[in-house]
Amino acid sequence: MEQVSSPQPIWEKAVIVGVGLLGGSIGLALRGGRLAREVIGVGRPGKPPTGAVATGAIDRAEAELVVAAHDADLVICCAPVQQIPELVAQCARVMRPDGLVTDVGSTKRTIVEQIERTAPTAPFVGSHPLAGGTASGYEHARVDLLNGSLVIITPSQHTPPERLARTEKLWQSLQAQTHCMPPADHDAALAQTSHLPHIVASALAAATSPELLPLTGPGWKGTTRVAKGNAKLWRQILEENRLPALQALENFAKMLEHWRLALESGDGERLEQLLEAGKATRDALGS
Amino acid sequence: MEQVSSPQPIWEKAVIVGVGLLGGSIGLALRGGRLAREVIGVGRPGKPPTGAVATGAIDRAEAELVVAAHDADLVICCAPVQQIPELVAQCARVMRPDGLVTDVGSTKRTIVEQIERTAPTAPFVGSHPLAGGTASGYEHARVDLLNGSLVIITPSQHTPPERLARTEKLWQSLQAQTHCMPPADHDAALAQTSHLPHIVASALAAATSPELLPLTGPGWKGTTRVAKGNAKLWRQILEENRLPALQALENFAKMLEHWRLALESGDGERLEQLLEAGKATRDALGS
Repeated sequence: MEQVSSPQPIWEKAVIVGVGLLGGSIGLALRGGRLAREVIGVGRPGKPPTGAVATGAIDRAEAELVVAAHDADLVICCAPVQQIPELVAQCARVMRPDGLVTDVGSTKRTIVEQIERTAPTAPFVGSHPLAGGTASGYEHARVDLLNGSLVIITPSQHTPPERLARTEKLWQSLQAQTHCMPPADHDAALAQTSHLPHIVASALAAATSPELLPLTGPGWKGTTRVAKGNAKLWRQILEENRLPALQALENFAKMLEHWRLALESGDGERLEQLLEAGKATRDALGS
Repeated sequence: MEQVSSPQPIWEKAVIVGVGLLGGSIGLALRGGRLAREVIGVGRPGKPPTGAVATGAIDRAEAELVVAAHDADLVICCAPVQQIPELVAQCARVMRPDGLVTDVGSTKRTIVEQIERTAPTAPFVGSHPLAGGTASGYEHARVDLLNGSLVIITPSQHTPPERLARTEKLWQSLQAQTHCMPPADHDAALAQTSHLPHIVASALAAATSPELLPLTGPGWKGTTRVAKGNAKLWRQILEENRLPALQALENFAKMLEHWRLALESGDGERLEQLLEAGKATRDALGS
């Protein structure tokens, strides 16, 4: 957990909009690495996240977004996906036009399109860190949450190369690895790697008879853990990424049909093939 | 992790058939608690598990089951489910008739029925500890693996009450909690709480395009982790518990159809209801 300190802060005034698990961890890492002269946290309108000052996630809390973002050269929006375009538009009106505003939203296509339509001058580049956990809130923030994780950056055809480069440097300075892909490609990929697992975990939890919960073991718990996530946030993610999620789900349902047929016919060889196929893919990723 | 030492060993000669993660952990706990005067490990025919002597899981390794089990008063079969009835029958011919032979198999109805048919004099009671992990082998055994876990015990109508009581005491002496239920009820429950999660995790892993694996996060990893399990062992579990597993899968497929319809119609309210339902069930179990 090496924390690289910058000899000179990269950012003058960094603003984190939404100081939860991810926003709080970004704040801890920005401050720990002395990457910003000042880190300001903003919560919901009129609700400054003062608690996050005490934990060291931010230098100070501000009640109003436009006050916090005034003359800022870095804004990171860690809000629910459907709020991000409006928040970015507000920031763009007051922040430094040569600054950088990015986000951590789990979907990208609709966010990028809406910002380019409604706030075309915003110095925006979309980001999605594949980090987090089921525990939410800045109380669970960790300076090393991003350490070694992957951040997907989703430039559009309108993104200036130097702005993209600064976005990559931002996440790399927080010890994350970066990978660039178009917003729509991101959404199609994450439908498979994140949104479908959430649906499956949630459906599996709900399909379990409540009286059998005492008879679950570590396997059930691990397989369903992400279903603990905030339902309102996940509703927004699935609404924003509806068609790719639908396609991933239909593909998965076809896979399950192979299992159903193998069980129905008692085809042990086929069951073993299916088990081996799942194991091979899962083993490719380590623990 | 308090380890209660018995002033007097409860068992004279305890035999563990299959010294893997679970068998090795049982051995460590039996020896750590001085619950048996001697703990003997047996592996596949002619393959004594000598490595497990060095780790302290067993006192000595024996090459032949019938030699190890001769005059034993406790035998615990930790073998693949389809081997258990034959192993129990072999032990029953040489062990003390007033002893106890149990198992740790993940299915129970076919095992109990087959043993009662082919080895009716075996002092057998079926058990299933809900403990373990994806790491296998005695190298990963832990003295506290059973600590606080649940062991389901599946007496039949032919099980003498005192033998059932000794089985409960065995697992409780290893710091586990016990719960009794008929074998068929166990299998119907575990189809939902263990076998379906395995199928779902495996199908989810296999449904993920391999080129997208680098874009998975902690959610995908947790949801698919059990798919790392041994395919041959899981094939046997699903073969033994075919119809309950099929029913659980069909029930789950119906649940997924609700999700498909909600996504297809873009019904955000319905998505949130489904998410809340999964979350409520999952939250009931803690982390």
